[in-house]
Amino acid sequence: MDRPSKHFDPSTPELRSERETEFARIIAFTDGVLAIAITLLVLQIDVPENQSNLLSELGKQLPDLLAYGLSFAVIGRFWMLHHRFFATLERFDSRLMVLNLVYLGLIVLVPFTSEVLGDYGDRPAAPILYATTLGLAALFNWAMVRHALRADLIHPDSRDAQPLGDANALVIPGILFLSIPIALLSPIAAQLSWLVIFLARGSIPRRAKRS
Amino acid sequence: MDRPSKHFDPSTPELRSERETEFARIIAFTDGVLAIAITLLVLQIDVPENQSNLLSELGKQLPDLLAYGLSFAVIGRFWMLHHRFFATLERFDSRLMVLNLVYLGLIVLVPFTSEVLGDYGDRPAAPILYATTLGLAALFNWAMVRHALRADLIHPDSRDAQPLGDANALVIPGILFLSIPIALLSPIAAQLSWLVIFLARGSIPRRAKRS
Amino acid sequence: MDRPSKHFDPSTPELRSERETEFARIIAFTDGVLAIAITLLVLQIDVPENQSNLLSELGKQLPDLLAYGLSFAVIGRFWMLHHRFFATLERFDSRLMVLNLVYLGLIVLVPFTSEVLGDYGDRPAAPILYATTLGLAALFNWAMVRHALRADLIHPDSRDAQPLGDANALVIPGILFLSIPIALLSPIAAQLSWLVIFLARGSIPRRAKRS
Amino acid sequence: MDRPSKHFDPSTPELRSERETEFARIIAFTDGVLAIAITLLVLQIDVPENQSNLLSELGKQLPDLLAYGLSFAVIGRFWMLHHRFFATLERFDSRLMVLNLVYLGLIVLVPFTSEVLGDYGDRPAAPILYATTLGLAALFNWAMVRHALRADLIHPDSRDAQPLGDANALVIPGILFLSIPIALLSPIAAQLSWLVIFLARGSIPRRAKRS
Repeated sequence: MDRPSKHFDPSTPELRSERETEFARIIAFTDGVLAIAITLLVLQIDVPENQSNLLSELGKQLPDLLAYGLSFAVIGRFWMLHHRFFATLERFDSRLMVLNLVYLGLIVLVPFTSEVLGDYGDRPAAPILYATTLGLAALFNWAMVRHALRADLIHPDSRDAQPLGDANALVIPGILFLSIPIALLSPIAAQLSWLVIFLARGSIPRRAKRS
Repeated sequence: MDRPSKHFDPSTPELRSERETEFARIIAFTDGVLAIAITLLVLQIDVPENQSNLLSELGKQLPDLLAYGLSFAVIGRFWMLHHRFFATLERFDSRLMVLNLVYLGLIVLVPFTSEVLGDYGDRPAAPILYATTLGLAALFNWAMVRHALRADLIHPDSRDAQPLGDANALVIPGILFLSIPIALLSPIAAQLSWLVIFLARGSIPRRAKRS
Repeated sequence: MDRPSKHFDPSTPELRSERETEFARIIAFTDGVLAIAITLLVLQIDVPENQSNLLSELGKQLPDLLAYGLSFAVIGRFWMLHHRFFATLERFDSRLMVLNLVYLGLIVLVPFTSEVLGDYGDRPAAPILYATTLGLAALFNWAMVRHALRADLIHPDSRDAQPLGDANALVIPGILFLSIPIALLSPIAAQLSWLVIFLARGSIPRRAKRS
Repeated sequence: MDRPSKHFDPSTPELRSERETEFARIIAFTDGVLAIAITLLVLQIDVPENQSNLLSELGKQLPDLLAYGLSFAVIGRFWMLHHRFFATLERFDSRLMVLNLVYLGLIVLVPFTSEVLGDYGDRPAAPILYATTLGLAALFNWAMVRHALRADLIHPDSRDAQPLGDANALVIPGILFLSIPIALLSPIAAQLSWLVIFLARGSIPRRAKRS
């Protein structure tokens, strides 16, 4: 973060550091929003109010707990992909910031859609709401990658890795949107189909070194 | 962030790094507060409790969802302006910190005013409360820019960009305060008038480069 | 943050950067907790459920709004003092981390004590609970400064500024604890007495420069 | 953070800074999640609704307050251990990120399990739920350390410190899992047994210096 880029004009060193701070703020804001959204998921699990049988009351929270686990994994997966993508960026523009905000606005809905899923997982409407919101989020993620490639925002050294990241980004919205018709037939089958997302792990960096 | 500023006296290098950390903390705190406020917006959308008709119950959340989308866009827009403004700062003083805290205190009210708007969008009081809070936030944003210009806190190289940012910052409180009398006649028209905020996009940097 | 300290042994440069990261994490964690606590304050303001008279229902939230404003200012003030103190640190030890955690644990109670204050501000118990919690937080803040001075954790160049910060830190718990007997006579007078905290502004840096 | 590592190939300097940002983001995300989880703990303390006797109503919140204090200390302790461990890392890989996410997913449950503990601390099910969740979190913490050691992710200069950290990390899940059978006999005794966690303080760095 502190070495002059080879594309950078050394005659305006102050602006460089300004831009670094700006870039760091976008990342920090995004990470903050994702960290809060993933943590607010816990609010969907209700503390039993009926004192007579605590164990069976806690047992009734199992669907909420499963929805919690799924949504935690999904937001975690989205965060890892975002993290990987942003590491390849050399520049940003205002369009990327707007796309990123819309993407975040969809992810932040997950604590709501996840609670609906935990409470009404046996109805088609709940997984459809869940898959639509996340499918759109994944689509905006893909749109960010696509825009970054076209507007030449990606670092030259990272370009080889992009087709993979790009293709991978489209697999996730595909799985999510395909689950919508499945949910009309079987809400449970739709939810099980989402697990495929976690099998497609190719684009995450296998190993990275810290300086 | 790590190169000595040309305005900096090298005889006190330790203080420089202290100040850098302080500056970074103000930005991090501000970003944290804005990120949390934008994420808490999701709590306004109620999960249906009536199990009989999930779809129609979810449909009733549409005004909440619209208020969510509006408030997410508004806080996102405020964040982008703040981000742009802080990138031009070379110094800060305690007055800027106080103005920034008041500004944050008004933005943090949005999850409350947004929920009132989602629940009572057809009454004048709801958009008036919303516009007043955000209009004051925008006014404090403008006061921060004005103070920074007068107290010479802006980086010399960034000064040309400031009149634009300054003027732009006044457009937003203007639109918000003008919507208050409109809300007395038509609450819906007041809310539609806010969309003009998103058409005035001039001050966001078109493109910035990472080092 | 990246220049070798003059007190630093250059033979172990890797450890230096480790420690920098650790220090940055303590600050980031503290800022995160304070940012979240200050933002959760908004949850104490209730959205009216009675649809018949929105304006009078919103008017009933005025005590909550005042408690919100007070607590936002108080946490903001605590954050600014913490921020000023941590900027003077050259080292940290595990005791400082533990003191800092206890301090945070008391500040995080403010969204609760503030809601009690907004709902029961006319009873002695509410301001006493509020003043006790924050008085203890201020005392732990003072204990951190004291420990840092004794354990030689403060940067030599910053030492002159310390007596001021130290004395100032004791003024705030003093005001808060003195308000406890006042609350027994008049809960409102106790709350008004807290405003003195904001008049004692001496220790905040008047101006600092970014590199 | 800005000095080239001796293990680093200087021919790909841009990638180095990418990786630094990535590493910083994992830490920032983790700290964000832990900071939010620790702050959400305050939501478990209920504001009295019965206006007739505020003091006795506040007194009824004492078990909630104790559960708050315990959970704040526990998450704080987990954060300190995580913080210490991550300071020793030189590299990360995708497996570490996944283990870290599962670990976070368990910690984020604490605001829920803590509320159950505050409300039903006299029933075996509450401390068992609490100890199981945190025991698993501590186990994943240990798995992260173990994986980092085996996959050679730890900085060579930090290796001596690892056996200690590693062993220490196993003490905590041991205490937590041992409290499960104790809870069947006496829920209170199980909760008291957790205090042993705070006596085993060896692995926290005694003193670290900032550059």
